[in-house]
Amino acid sequence: MDYFRRMGALRRKLTRAGLHGLLVTHPPDIRYLCGFTGSSAALALTRRRARLFTDGRYTAQAAEEVQAAEVHIVTGAPAVAAAQWLAAQPGVMMAGFDPARTTVADLVRWKRELPSRLRRAFFQTTPAPLVELLRAVKDEDELALMAEAALLGCKLFEHILNFLKPGLPEIEVAAELEHRARVLGAEAMSFETIIAAGARSAMPHGRATPAPLPRKGFVTLDFGIILKGYCSDMTRTVFLGKPTPKERIAYNSVLEAQETALNTVTAGVSCGEVDEAARSVLRRAGFGEAFSHSTGHGVGLEIHEPPRVGAGQTTRLLRGMVITIEPGIYLPGKFGVRIEDMVAVTRTGSQVLTPAPKALIEL
Amino acid sequence: MDYFRRMGALRRKLTRAGLHGLLVTHPPDIRYLCGFTGSSAALALTRRRARLFTDGRYTAQAAEEVQAAEVHIVTGAPAVAAAQWLAAQPGVMMAGFDPARTTVADLVRWKRELPSRLRRAFFQTTPAPLVELLRAVKDEDELALMAEAALLGCKLFEHILNFLKPGLPEIEVAAELEHRARVLGAEAMSFETIIAAGARSAMPHGRATPAPLPRKGFVTLDFGIILKGYCSDMTRTVFLGKPTPKERIAYNSVLEAQETALNTVTAGVSCGEVDEAARSVLRRAGFGEAFSHSTGHGVGLEIHEPPRVGAGQTTRLLRGMVITIEPGIYLPGKFGVRIEDMVAVTRTGSQVLTPAPKALIEL
Repeated sequence: MDYFRRMGALRRKLTRAGLHGLLVTHPPDIRYLCGFTGSSAALALTRRRARLFTDGRYTAQAAEEVQAAEVHIVTGAPAVAAAQWLAAQPGVMMAGFDPARTTVADLVRWKRELPSRLRRAFFQTTPAPLVELLRAVKDEDELALMAEAALLGCKLFEHILNFLKPGLPEIEVAAELEHRARVLGAEAMSFETIIAAGARSAMPHGRATPAPLPRKGFVTLDFGIILKGYCSDMTRTVFLGKPTPKERIAYNSVLEAQETALNTVTAGVSCGEVDEAARSVLRRAGFGEAFSHSTGHGVGLEIHEPPRVGAGQTTRLLRGMVITIEPGIYLPGKFGVRIEDMVAVTRTGSQVLTPAPKALIEL
Repeated sequence: MDYFRRMGALRRKLTRAGLHGLLVTHPPDIRYLCGFTGSSAALALTRRRARLFTDGRYTAQAAEEVQAAEVHIVTGAPAVAAAQWLAAQPGVMMAGFDPARTTVADLVRWKRELPSRLRRAFFQTTPAPLVELLRAVKDEDELALMAEAALLGCKLFEHILNFLKPGLPEIEVAAELEHRARVLGAEAMSFETIIAAGARSAMPHGRATPAPLPRKGFVTLDFGIILKGYCSDMTRTVFLGKPTPKERIAYNSVLEAQETALNTVTAGVSCGEVDEAARSVLRRAGFGEAFSHSTGHGVGLEIHEPPRVGAGQTTRLLRGMVITIEPGIYLPGKFGVRIEDMVAVTRTGSQVLTPAPKALIEL
């Protein structure tokens, strides 16, 4: 990972925002900028220097992981030490912080430790989540890792197909999938595994329960793993038994919506246009109301990152962004269907990172 | 769960703090007060009413789960709607929020939507994390669930003992343990499983890696599950092969420290005294420097909750608190040992919730 390049890009944004420094406390942002993966840290950045503050538990780990920043071990709160250090740097009169990642209590504590002449105006909210917006555009190293993570997800789907059968509790499906993920090298799941069978498939967030898989019905599997820090995310919906014509129509409508939206993904298109592509297919098929969430979201070091792929979103796709495309329909009390891929915006269009089959699988 | 009792206790605290209302946004706090487990919600509380705000994805779930509060489905941000509702309640001139659980951006957004006459003084930081402090003292229902969660942890430890053998990658140990947890009904792990073998046991936070278990050396297993929302947390350190006298002395020193601290746990004792009980044993044994973290922490709906059981902490233990006691020693490049139980403060003293064997197990 080219941490120096990232720090350079961030410094240019800082300069443009008129800030002399930045205090970074969100762990994925810290990892992105200097490689540190510990849970307790703060990164202080000026136009010339960068210093990571962490505590004694992480001495060895920080020495091993951190690049493009000095490391400083502290006994108190890392962010307070970072705030004090920033305020003591020559020429630093104003430092930014991300208001969406800073609690009211943190800000009060940081300010309290500043020299009184600086207390009022030193910390300024950044005009946008600077690091998060950098993170939205993945570099080559990240794209390679994300492709690897997504392929691992596809392997898990393939594996679990042989395992699904009526009567099996949803949580055993999740357990098998998660065990396989671990054995194949995943550090963790990127979110709580969704296994939602029968009428439960009508819940967009149907976490696996002890309920048994039905003899006949849809099973939605929505899961992701974390590999070397990067999240995967995919959904497939399969059918146990023979679907009715109505169920088949619903499935194929979602599939058409999903592929139509995928086909719009290219640099320069707005996220709202991608969302509308999926939505209009479902609307025409009479499922407009049943598609009750956004079409997708960015993914990377976190499972949900910018950009949001929802109605009216004006953000334009950039080469290197990785988003999900996951339209669904939910008919409460009856059934639901969702199909989700991860897709990267490339120089020439897009590349699907989750090439698992999408035609309806009947088991 | 007696949500009405909890709401009543919270209202008394609000009144004492001179506040007319409270805006609760931290998911475990919301779950504690009204039972809702969804991820997107805000709870607004006045002296007479309570209303949960969530979005359309959770209509069915909220109807099923929520007690002691009205449910209101919104299309925008639940917390913004909750803030507006609070400000519109008769007699509510000042509402509290927890500054440690509210971002600077959230507070700005909430204020922006208020009538201008209220904007300046309506939202007040609470003098303490009111809900979190209530949560620190568990009621009978919670204690029963936590005992069940802790016992499940003990079963997992028993299971994994038959599985450990030299050469096995740490992550496969974690995978087996986590799979078993799921099959036995755990919703998830309460934190990333720590399996740290050989020299890696000297890292207090040694997440499982692909490294193989050594032929000879300590293996630290620190893991927890979530059962019906409640976290368990336990650590055992076992030995593969025959320990040297020095390793045995280290192990027994930690064990003595752990049991000495456990024996001090009773209502009225300060957390600092409990910490000192463990620390003084290790200091006398020459391992004072090697015990580099606090003795323990509260546990419940979250894996880390008040109280903190560390040096100098003056908080006094109350009947119903559940804390961990987990001293350890870490000798970088050599080995580490940690032993951890969950213990509940009872009417007559304390009760260990994790009765798995602690004498050194040699495999």
